[in-house]
Amino acid sequence: MSVLKQPFADRLAAAVRARRNPVVVGLDPRFAQLPEPLQVGVDPRDRRQVAAAYERFCRGIIDVVAPLAPAVKPQAAFFEQLGPPGMSVLAEVIAYARQRGLLVIFDGKRNDIGTTAEAYADAYLGDESAWGADALTVSPYLGDDSLEPFVATAQARGAGLFVLVKTSNPGGGTLQDLPSSGRPLYRHVADWVERLASQTKASGGYGAIGAVVGATYPQQLAELRQAMPHAWLLVPGYGSQGASAADVAGGFDARGLGAIVNNSRGIIFAHARAPFDRQFGPARWQDAVAAATGEMIEQLRAATNAGKL
Amino acid sequence: MSVLKQPFADRLAAAVRARRNPVVVGLDPRFAQLPEPLQVGVDPRDRRQVAAAYERFCRGIIDVVAPLAPAVKPQAAFFEQLGPPGMSVLAEVIAYARQRGLLVIFDGKRNDIGTTAEAYADAYLGDESAWGADALTVSPYLGDDSLEPFVATAQARGAGLFVLVKTSNPGGGTLQDLPSSGRPLYRHVADWVERLASQTKASGGYGAIGAVVGATYPQQLAELRQAMPHAWLLVPGYGSQGASAADVAGGFDARGLGAIVNNSRGIIFAHARAPFDRQFGPARWQDAVAAATGEMIEQLRAATNAGKL
Repeated sequence: MSVLKQPFADRLAAAVRARRNPVVVGLDPRFAQLPEPLQVGVDPRDRRQVAAAYERFCRGIIDVVAPLAPAVKPQAAFFEQLGPPGMSVLAEVIAYARQRGLLVIFDGKRNDIGTTAEAYADAYLGDESAWGADALTVSPYLGDDSLEPFVATAQARGAGLFVLVKTSNPGGGTLQDLPSSGRPLYRHVADWVERLASQTKASGGYGAIGAVVGATYPQQLAELRQAMPHAWLLVPGYGSQGASAADVAGGFDARGLGAIVNNSRGIIFAHARAPFDRQFGPARWQDAVAAATGEMIEQLRAATNAGKL
Repeated sequence: MSVLKQPFADRLAAAVRARRNPVVVGLDPRFAQLPEPLQVGVDPRDRRQVAAAYERFCRGIIDVVAPLAPAVKPQAAFFEQLGPPGMSVLAEVIAYARQRGLLVIFDGKRNDIGTTAEAYADAYLGDESAWGADALTVSPYLGDDSLEPFVATAQARGAGLFVLVKTSNPGGGTLQDLPSSGRPLYRHVADWVERLASQTKASGGYGAIGAVVGATYPQQLAELRQAMPHAWLLVPGYGSQGASAADVAGGFDARGLGAIVNNSRGIIFAHARAPFDRQFGPARWQDAVAAATGEMIEQLRAATNAGKL
């Protein structure tokens, strides 16, 4: 079966074209921010009960966004925080998202050396893996032989990787901006990612290996779009972290492809922010999710090449 | 309760002194390498059955090494590879190791930005966390604000961190050795770790923040011991990755403290390597684990300051 699987880069392009937008909905559940109806009757100290609430919440989001957005990105940390019951729910959420036709990017930022990296790759990538994700975020600090097993497995299973290049947080520059041979470290990582992307290029022109590049650094985003012409960019930082549609415009190619833009809190907790708090409130939180997703889609269509999709 | 908890750095020193050796036993189960008695009757395609075999195996190792070594280091990847059943077993293995008096270093190499890093820290560090580990390995690529929540939580809970500085794999240098301002990147990370270690210094002179420095680069290990006088070093690469006791000697301080040395395959799969394969074989695999642990302890005592413990 896996032999016939389309490459991830092409599946992602097809999903973005089909929905005519590049929105990734981040699944980052936090108990204190869940809509009130999902908190009622749940003891926040009981990890099983909280995990069950996360499952209801994530399924509710998936039901809303499946027809609207091409992909979801579960953030592993919030499920790991609950221990084994959280992990069981994470597996259920991934399976449900895929069943509803969404691509699933597992945000785990995993990394390790050789044979251990093989185990991580085998754990997460593709239908035959234990978690069944379409793609995984990985960290580059351990160097080239640490990424090889991820690349080989992604390629063999029609899955994808997003390597951290330039992250969206204020302190990302501590290492990423250190100059080496006249260029910041992140440019060295970008060259390496571009090599891997080019080597794994599918029919649509993009490879199995993409990059995480934060929306909060618009100039570097545009620079990195040029530096990695064969790499899909996963762009976090939209909304709650302060980046706008104009900030992410430089991430797209002329066709409106090449970048997918994540929004977590701005969509999943839309019931608690203006203008959706007044319009919908906690009881109609799923309507708020739909409205916030629609708002982001329109913003991206208006201010970026995603409007050409 | 957590307020009264001794700092991790002091608990680690006490454990090393009590066992008079710095050996960390890496729990890296792989089905194909399990002793035959643990494979019998297990369908390797059934993740629940494999997870149950991993639990028997890890408990068997813990029973042997608890009186001998100060700590174990479960490698998350091999449990994650089995999906939720693997995660449940990982939680059981951690709890059992602690119950048997071992310190547990969770090798997950986690990392993320601000509020997500908080969730990872809360997930793993200390008695009140879901996983209940004493320490966690973390990756530095996301920069200083990504480590802050880990540091704060470790400090508050008497737990520890080991930040990747110079890893043991051949390709580790891809980024870690890139020169910046005349020094390799890993030295910049080391300066940062030393600041955090110094800020969290406990009564024994070491801080809550340590560093991962591979045994396969003996010269850099000695250099980094000097560069990070307040950081415990977690030293992988002994045995299967080729490093000897002489190679790790530079990691210790004059008292025989300051470094702990991990060995995974060389101990847990000792039944399959000379001379223990002939001496014990699969049926007496636990005796092989005991003998291999004893061998490593003697090698370290003979060739390093651990002999002064």
